[in-house]
Amino acid sequence: MALEVTDWTPSGDLKPVGGVVLVVVDIQGGGLNSPVENDANLMPGRAERNPKAVDLVNSFREKRVPVIFIQEVHKPSLVDIGRELDGSEGPHCIEGEQRTRLHPGLEPRPEEYLIQKRRYSAFFGTELDLLLRGYQARTVILIGGMTDVCIHYTAVDAHQLDYHFRTVTDLVVGSGEELHEAALRAMKYLQRDSLVTSQSVYEWLETVPAVEEVPA
Amino acid sequence: MALEVTDWTPSGDLKPVGGVVLVVVDIQGGGLNSPVENDANLMPGRAERNPKAVDLVNSFREKRVPVIFIQEVHKPSLVDIGRELDGSEGPHCIEGEQRTRLHPGLEPRPEEYLIQKRRYSAFFGTELDLLLRGYQARTVILIGGMTDVCIHYTAVDAHQLDYHFRTVTDLVVGSGEELHEAALRAMKYLQRDSLVTSQSVYEWLETVPAVEEVPA
Amino acid sequence: MALEVTDWTPSGDLKPVGGVVLVVVDIQGGGLNSPVENDANLMPGRAERNPKAVDLVNSFREKRVPVIFIQEVHKPSLVDIGRELDGSEGPHCIEGEQRTRLHPGLEPRPEEYLIQKRRYSAFFGTELDLLLRGYQARTVILIGGMTDVCIHYTAVDAHQLDYHFRTVTDLVVGSGEELHEAALRAMKYLQRDSLVTSQSVYEWLETVPAVEEVPA
Amino acid sequence: MALEVTDWTPSGDLKPVGGVVLVVVDIQGGGLNSPVENDANLMPGRAERNPKAVDLVNSFREKRVPVIFIQEVHKPSLVDIGRELDGSEGPHCIEGEQRTRLHPGLEPRPEEYLIQKRRYSAFFGTELDLLLRGYQARTVILIGGMTDVCIHYTAVDAHQLDYHFRTVTDLVVGSGEELHEAALRAMKYLQRDSLVTSQSVYEWLETVPAVEEVPA
Repeated sequence: MALEVTDWTPSGDLKPVGGVVLVVVDIQGGGLNSPVENDANLMPGRAERNPKAVDLVNSFREKRVPVIFIQEVHKPSLVDIGRELDGSEGPHCIEGEQRTRLHPGLEPRPEEYLIQKRRYSAFFGTELDLLLRGYQARTVILIGGMTDVCIHYTAVDAHQLDYHFRTVTDLVVGSGEELHEAALRAMKYLQRDSLVTSQSVYEWLETVPAVEEVPA
Repeated sequence: MALEVTDWTPSGDLKPVGGVVLVVVDIQGGGLNSPVENDANLMPGRAERNPKAVDLVNSFREKRVPVIFIQEVHKPSLVDIGRELDGSEGPHCIEGEQRTRLHPGLEPRPEEYLIQKRRYSAFFGTELDLLLRGYQARTVILIGGMTDVCIHYTAVDAHQLDYHFRTVTDLVVGSGEELHEAALRAMKYLQRDSLVTSQSVYEWLETVPAVEEVPA
Repeated sequence: MALEVTDWTPSGDLKPVGGVVLVVVDIQGGGLNSPVENDANLMPGRAERNPKAVDLVNSFREKRVPVIFIQEVHKPSLVDIGRELDGSEGPHCIEGEQRTRLHPGLEPRPEEYLIQKRRYSAFFGTELDLLLRGYQARTVILIGGMTDVCIHYTAVDAHQLDYHFRTVTDLVVGSGEELHEAALRAMKYLQRDSLVTSQSVYEWLETVPAVEEVPA
Repeated sequence: MALEVTDWTPSGDLKPVGGVVLVVVDIQGGGLNSPVENDANLMPGRAERNPKAVDLVNSFREKRVPVIFIQEVHKPSLVDIGRELDGSEGPHCIEGEQRTRLHPGLEPRPEEYLIQKRRYSAFFGTELDLLLRGYQARTVILIGGMTDVCIHYTAVDAHQLDYHFRTVTDLVVGSGEELHEAALRAMKYLQRDSLVTSQSVYEWLETVPAVEEVPA
């Protein structure tokens, strides 16, 4: 029984099970360079990831595979902040600030769902599980951030709720390199097929039949 | 904003907030040397931790501070195993096997609660939150294992449910050294006061008034 | 042990415990006469209740006692409708329709929370519990509808989550007279102090100290 | 739109959807005449229902259709009683008392699940949803009591979690005749096919193929 995960190279094969939903977690910033004010210590990678995330979302839309958007938001009063100021983060994702807005191009369309959440896991105090059941999804694909916080804890809840999850390792960014890598290892510990490349997602999308336009 | 946690030395000061409950997570094995069959790759430390855990539990009992015991159990049919075979772990914690039993000395007394769980977080599909509210607890102290799985994910849910959590770093054991340390860092990321020594817990217990025996 | 509730006269005394939050459940219709298209069989009372609900909400705002607004909404695709078409109701609360909008005067202010829900209980798949904890509420006051569906099942969850609940009997309307009354009896079965008049709420509000205006 | 349910005659056709699980809710009493001490005001029917419930459970076992047993239990300390003393019920289902035990013949076999719950809904703070997913159930059949409390609120949660539920009207007993009937109407409001006779369950069971004995 070799429990410890020592190789966390992503797989080139998505291997989804049942229905698929793409979950875009907390890609915010409203087009500003950074979602936080003083980002000197943030793990880099957002500027490269964000346009790639837009491309992936648009590819899902073309094939009519559902996308759900997650946005962390707190009222300026911080009534809903819980214990989120007891750790490394200061006040963040304040409603009304530009940097709290979704990244341009990642705003939901009328038929798509936006879930505004108050905690790290996208399942906590939200309708995410209910919507995934509505879509008859069994596999959730995760992109966004941060790898070691909202992505990791969303993956844990997906796992505990019996979903297969796939984290796109080149489309997630962590709070720092080490915790980013540790979170990937922890996710692979949970599901050995969970780490994938965006390339593998595109290859799977190509196998999804095109949607025929139905005249209205 | 320095998000990344680079120092995870435990604190010598428990600093509990409000009511306290000790949660003993998955200290199983039934007295066997190991809770799993082939443990060559397991992070060592259980043999040293277990008697210390018994001592701590007894000290809580003396001061009438509540203790809740958590035990992971799965039916031999594995109906309840969910996705737990999709990762690093094989079938584990099978009902009826000796190694699934609680460690001797850690069996709940009649007035104490035992929560048998099917997933990693002790809050998932259980009455833990309800019991903590019943005890009017605001701080949960975590001991047991594994640091990077059941302890970490129980801490995350405690955090999201607005509890203060304290992980006793010398009384938790992980799946491996690296993920053990990464999980401690992740917990400190959530709550900067969350890592403590068993020494600090004992020092706090000394400040709890002795319970006077009431004649029946 | 006389279990059955035979008298469900509301109390003239609110008797709140701890912090109070007013929860306005599904007062929708967007100013139309009715929230449903064909309302011949609906229990009457909405036209009288709605302006009274606006007055009560404004009185809470004056005293800075928090108000949370609940709105049932479903996408036109009905992905999120669950089993809600298996019973008496047809498609309802469709996003984008005028009758799905909140009643005029009951739209949340920027500092107030709006919870859009997909099921009957306002706690199911929502952040309501989390927000009530944030407000340090122990008592929830319920107005809106329908008595025997969303009000009843929200009250049940509040009860099970250890809140004291108060249903304002002259500000709730049911699907029909008999089920309206049966639901009031069921709520009184759960908490004997749970049925109150709007008069009792106003009398309590008078005891809440006025908020002094703080210069900005 | 005729919302109100005026006819609650049970159906003679079970019409299950997908996998089926029988959920036996709170049939307790340990063989005593009554599960409560002073039962003068209790709706009668338990003495007739209980042996019929045993027969039905045994018929499910013969066809290997899963049965899950629910038992309400509270510690003598009442730490876990929540708000359940604020209404019509006094202290009830105390651990260790004979009347808290399951009715003879309704004790789970080793391969069957027993869920001990602290609140009225069998889903609240329990693993029921997780187990139903494990059994791949989409339809739950409810028997036991009380119709207007634990049965009703379990049905509501089943409904909100997208299960089809069937309440066997001749195998449930309420707190009183009127609330028993009102709860049946409320359940039919939720799912128009939800009220069935035990006869219809037996007729469906006959269509389930016999299990061939596999030599060990």
